[in-house]
Amino acid sequence: MSNPSLLILPGDGIGPEVMAEVRKIIGWFGAKRGLEFDVSEDLVGGAAYDVHGKPLSDETMAKAQEVDAVLLGAVGGPKYDDLDFSVKPERGLLRLRKEMDLYSNLRPAQCFDALADFSSLKKDVVAGLDIMIVRELTSGVYFGEPRGIFEEGNERVGINTQRYTESEIERAARSAFELAMRRNKKLCSMEKANVMESGILWREVVTRVGQDYPEVELSHMYADNGAMQLVRAPKQFDVILTDNLFGDILSDCAAMLTGSLGMLPSASLGAPMANGRPKALYEPVHGSAPDIAGQGKANPIACILSFAMALRYSFDQGAEADRLEAAVEKVLADGVRTADLLAEEGVQPVSTSEMGDAIVAAL
Amino acid sequence: MSNPSLLILPGDGIGPEVMAEVRKIIGWFGAKRGLEFDVSEDLVGGAAYDVHGKPLSDETMAKAQEVDAVLLGAVGGPKYDDLDFSVKPERGLLRLRKEMDLYSNLRPAQCFDALADFSSLKKDVVAGLDIMIVRELTSGVYFGEPRGIFEEGNERVGINTQRYTESEIERAARSAFELAMRRNKKLCSMEKANVMESGILWREVVTRVGQDYPEVELSHMYADNGAMQLVRAPKQFDVILTDNLFGDILSDCAAMLTGSLGMLPSASLGAPMANGRPKALYEPVHGSAPDIAGQGKANPIACILSFAMALRYSFDQGAEADRLEAAVEKVLADGVRTADLLAEEGVQPVSTSEMGDAIVAAL
Ligand SMILES: CC(C)[C@H](C(=O)O)[C@@H](O)C(=O)O
Ligand SMILES: CC(C)[C@H](C(=O)O)[C@@H](O)C(=O)O
Repeated sequence: MSNPSLLILPGDGIGPEVMAEVRKIIGWFGAKRGLEFDVSEDLVGGAAYDVHGKPLSDETMAKAQEVDAVLLGAVGGPKYDDLDFSVKPERGLLRLRKEMDLYSNLRPAQCFDALADFSSLKKDVVAGLDIMIVRELTSGVYFGEPRGIFEEGNERVGINTQRYTESEIERAARSAFELAMRRNKKLCSMEKANVMESGILWREVVTRVGQDYPEVELSHMYADNGAMQLVRAPKQFDVILTDNLFGDILSDCAAMLTGSLGMLPSASLGAPMANGRPKALYEPVHGSAPDIAGQGKANPIACILSFAMALRYSFDQGAEADRLEAAVEKVLADGVRTADLLAEEGVQPVSTSEMGDAIVAAL
Repeated sequence: MSNPSLLILPGDGIGPEVMAEVRKIIGWFGAKRGLEFDVSEDLVGGAAYDVHGKPLSDETMAKAQEVDAVLLGAVGGPKYDDLDFSVKPERGLLRLRKEMDLYSNLRPAQCFDALADFSSLKKDVVAGLDIMIVRELTSGVYFGEPRGIFEEGNERVGINTQRYTESEIERAARSAFELAMRRNKKLCSMEKANVMESGILWREVVTRVGQDYPEVELSHMYADNGAMQLVRAPKQFDVILTDNLFGDILSDCAAMLTGSLGMLPSASLGAPMANGRPKALYEPVHGSAPDIAGQGKANPIACILSFAMALRYSFDQGAEADRLEAAVEKVLADGVRTADLLAEEGVQPVSTSEMGDAIVAAL
């Protein structure tokens, strides 16, 4: 049987640096645990634009459709700020999400014990925090038509369309309920059903899907209250389900609660392929951080933990994912810190590649 | 010359209780400072629905258009959860905003010295915090057409439309720049121009308006990053400008940073009327809090500070507004606390009306 295939898309900014460390980890699993992958690499975002004049070539798109999982670094940077909307780096990522139909975006917001002091929130508010945000990723205002800037009378108008069908809501909801069943069986769904009809339909469909999961305690919250509650008392949540745009904002808010954005991975999952594995793309929650790119300062952990999610969700290697996560925890407990994690005075930061090496050593 | 007129709409839940305290304050300014108002009172939200079968009668709407300022308590409650969308309590508030054309919603997020410990954030992150969020309030996805739940093939689809014209963006931006000029001359505008065309137009128009305010340092941020930065380091901001939906979420997030939602007022302002005063509605940021309604536990300060904003923005009584705000600070410094503000053990909470009395006494 051939090895499972991975397509690596390092992208822009710190993407290539952090991805180099993931390659070390992949190498370790091949050499020491007999988990070999066929790895190929390609361009996305600004890096692809520089070569192809667009942020994702059709060839790369086709490859992404064929592999067992895609690992992505980050896209974007000031160099590309003035590009036309249609070829901005972000469009490459959005095309991958849409054409691979990755409707369920899993964003854990976890507070690492060794880093609880690092949050802007009080330690007792965030210590032990472990939330999973499920964000619908292929619909809503990100993709709805009509969209654009149009002439109207003697001025212009900017239009985007929030749009959700019952089946789009249903499949995202189902993936959130499934996750809740494997966690603490609590699901909170967030929308603005008090002002948006799309939110009314969202609430109705989520409630209906919930009837198939009687063990899961389902609640509903308006998204503005959700943002408040995340800041006030985040540990009240287990799984949060929300749409594409609210998910963008609420998951970043939740991520920042942990105080360690450089630590947080994500998985974007679609329907099962012929081999039973879901279509999947894994990426860190942090962006391309152009201000520190190329300096060997970036924290590779979010990207490494994204590979751990790949082991768990694409390759059914939960025990190996646990092993990798434990190695990360150990390195943190040992006080190894990249520059973004330096709260204590006097501690010397390690470089991106030293952090990668430390994790390999801990494995 | 006749007295300026105020329409009081206490609404639902704790609205009537907190508004009763505002009436004491209004009485004090009449008796002691010669600032007399012609006060009338009417129904909004569920309270109006119970009487009229809709959350705002045409008569009340007409009155709101005529008075110098409207003071609103809060709308909504579980009793009305199953009402049809078109008559939900929130529709009453949204109708007021839309028909009075209150395009500029000012939401200060201020951390009171005496309450800095009360935030879920670390004290040094929030002590001294003083942000003003300007939220566009009459357009965007709250009001855009088409909207509704439609049949499509064999399922339903929920649709809302995000929609901003150049002039809508421009007038909101102008009010934010004007405010920034009277504060620390920093304005950060938030949208999702990386994924939404309406955000591209937003950014372009805000940049253009900024040319009329060369002294104001203008920056742009994606709204997801904005949510993060608010949690990470809120004191980097002075004035934040954003649209209706992002403003709903970001202002609640900012409000919660201060740890004292029961303290935060808001002003919703429109174009000047014939007498030079802007159309205006003032309301606390907190909601109707049905769980504690009718128990005399609610904190009336947000509603009282909303009246202070009325003194400042509608009646050009900045010094009297300062006086009222100072009285609130004094009462807090003296350790007077409603139940929502009880961090310290052993302190006995005062009732809603005791808090109102304490503020009158401090005046
Ligand atoms: C880069 C951008 C297009 C993207 C989004 O808005 O979804 C990012 O913010 C994210 O959350 O993954
Ligand atoms: C009550 C509701 C309609 C309202 C809104 O969504 O604008 C509230 O959340 C607010 O922020 O004033």
